[in-house]
Amino acid sequence: MIGSVTIREVCLRDGLQIERPIPLAAKLALLEAVLATGVREVEVTAFVSPSKVPALADAAALAAELPRLRQQHGDVEFSALVAGPGGAARAVAAGMTSLEYVVSAADGHSRANVGRGTAESTDLIADITRIAHDGGATIEVIVATAWDCPFDGPTDPARVRDVVTAAVELGTDRVAVADTIGTTTPRRVTTLLDVLRPVLGDVPVGAHFHDTRGAGLASAWAAVTAGVTRLDASVGGLGGCPFAPGASGNIATEDLVYLLRDSGIDTGVDLTAAIHAAAVARDAVGHDLPSALLRAGDRILG
Amino acid sequence: MIGSVTIREVCLRDGLQIERPIPLAAKLALLEAVLATGVREVEVTAFVSPSKVPALADAAALAAELPRLRQQHGDVEFSALVAGPGGAARAVAAGMTSLEYVVSAADGHSRANVGRGTAESTDLIADITRIAHDGGATIEVIVATAWDCPFDGPTDPARVRDVVTAAVELGTDRVAVADTIGTTTPRRVTTLLDVLRPVLGDVPVGAHFHDTRGAGLASAWAAVTAGVTRLDASVGGLGGCPFAPGASGNIATEDLVYLLRDSGIDTGVDLTAAIHAAAVARDAVGHDLPSALLRAGDRILG
Repeated sequence: MIGSVTIREVCLRDGLQIERPIPLAAKLALLEAVLATGVREVEVTAFVSPSKVPALADAAALAAELPRLRQQHGDVEFSALVAGPGGAARAVAAGMTSLEYVVSAADGHSRANVGRGTAESTDLIADITRIAHDGGATIEVIVATAWDCPFDGPTDPARVRDVVTAAVELGTDRVAVADTIGTTTPRRVTTLLDVLRPVLGDVPVGAHFHDTRGAGLASAWAAVTAGVTRLDASVGGLGGCPFAPGASGNIATEDLVYLLRDSGIDTGVDLTAAIHAAAVARDAVGHDLPSALLRAGDRILG
Repeated sequence: MIGSVTIREVCLRDGLQIERPIPLAAKLALLEAVLATGVREVEVTAFVSPSKVPALADAAALAAELPRLRQQHGDVEFSALVAGPGGAARAVAAGMTSLEYVVSAADGHSRANVGRGTAESTDLIADITRIAHDGGATIEVIVATAWDCPFDGPTDPARVRDVVTAAVELGTDRVAVADTIGTTTPRRVTTLLDVLRPVLGDVPVGAHFHDTRGAGLASAWAAVTAGVTRLDASVGGLGGCPFAPGASGNIATEDLVYLLRDSGIDTGVDLTAAIHAAAVARDAVGHDLPSALLRAGDRILG
C-alpha cells in the first residue's frame, strides 16, 4: 500500500465553474483558506470561453495574484485548465506554470464540451504541449468521460487508452482520468487502470471523481489501492460540469483526507483547516454543500 | 472476488428508530415497497423499551402482520433486534423467527444504550441464544461500536474479538460488526476483519455501516473485498442511533446496490424498485434523505 497521496484542490475551477460568478476577492479568500490546509497543488481557474463559463472569466486577473501567493505560501503548484491552443497561449501569457488540457474520450461529450470530437481534440495535444513547454509550463492531459458519457453511454476503455497513449507519446508530463458524470464504481476503476498501465510508461496518472451516485470515495479508495497517488478533490464537495447533464459535486477534500488519514496515508492536508475551507466555500457560493464532514465534523472521541 | 452479497434491509428498524413514530399502516406500506425490491432479509422492528424507542413501540402489532406478508412474498427472513432476555422472549412470543442481539464492544456506549457494560451484555448471550433457539428462532450477535465509541474513543479490536469469541462459543448463528457512529474507514475495516477471522469458525459475519463521514460505501466495499457477504443497508440512507451522538444515516440500499451491480456482484435487489422504496421512506418520514441515487437516479446512458 502506498504511503502518501497528492491531493489537487479543484474547488476554484471545477468547484466554481457552474456557480454564479463570485467576486475575485471572494475567490482569493477561498484560495487563502485552501492554502491554509497545507495542500501543495491547486487548480485555480480555466482559460476557456468567458461566455461559456462566466464564473471563470476573471482567469487572467486571478493569475496575476499568484506570484504574491507563491511568495507567501512557498512551493505551491497553481494550475489552470485549458480547452484548446488559444486558451493554452493565454494561460502561459498570464504566467501560469502548470496547464491541464481536457480531452473527452467520448465523442458526444467532447462535441458538447468543445465542439469537436475525440480524435480532433487528441490531435491538439501536440500543439498544446508545445505551447506549454515553450512557455516553461508543465502540461497534464485529463481524459474526461473516462467511464461513461451522458450522450454516448459507457466509454470503451480502449478509447481512454488511445488518448493516454497519444498524450504519453506527445510528451505530456502527467495524465489523469475523470469520472465526469459521477457514475463509476470501484471495480470499473481498477479495470480501467489495468488497461492504462501498459501505456503509461513513467508518466504519473491521477484520478478525478464525482460523488453523484455515492461511490466517489469508494472509487477513490479503489484507485489508491491500485497504486494511484494523485487525486483531485474539492472542499465542501463543491462542483460539477455544466456540459454533462446529471453531474454533481466532486469528492469532498475533507472527506477524502479523513478516509486516507485513518488509513495511514499521508496527504499533507490538515483536516480541521480543510473543514474550515469547506465552510468558506459554502459561504462564498451561498448554498449548502454535500460534504459529510462539513456536517458531522472530524471524529472527536473519548 | 465474491459473486453475491446478501443485503439486509434495516430501514424499518435502524431507519425509523430515531424518527417520530409513524402509523403502522405507513410502516406496512414501506415494508411492501421494500419487499418489492427483491431483498430476502428485512429487519422489521426491535423489541425494546417503548419509552426509550417510541417509534418501535408497535413491534408486536407489526410482527402479527408478517405471516401474511410471508405468504405473499415467499421465503423472506424477517428479523427483530432485542436488547436483553425480556425483549427476546417477547419477540419469540410475537412469532419472530430471527433475532438480533446487540452487544456494544465499548463500555461507554453499552451503558448509555442498555445500562450495563460490555461484560454483562456478553454474559447475556447465553440466555438470549437459548430463548431464541428454544423458540425456534435464529440469533445473530451484532457488535456495536466495533470501531469507535462516542464516549470511550477508539475501540480496541481485541474487545470486539472477545465478544465475537463468546458469541461463537455460545452458539450464535451469525455475528455482525457495526460502525454505530459512522467513523470507520476502509483500512480499519480490513484490520478488524483480520482480527476476527481466526475466531469466527463457520459463523458468517456481516457488517453494518453508517455514512456519517462519507466513507460508508468505501468501507462496505473494503468489507466485500475482504470476503464479507452480508451487509446491512437502509433505503434512502434513513437511520441513526438515538444513543450515539453524531450518528447519522445508514448506507443507502440503492447506492450500495448500484456499486455492487456495476462491480458484477449480485444482490438480488432491483435498483429501480429500491429507489422507489427510498422515495416511499422519504415520504413516510416527511423529510429529505441522504441517498445519492434518490437525487441522481440510476445511470441512464446513451
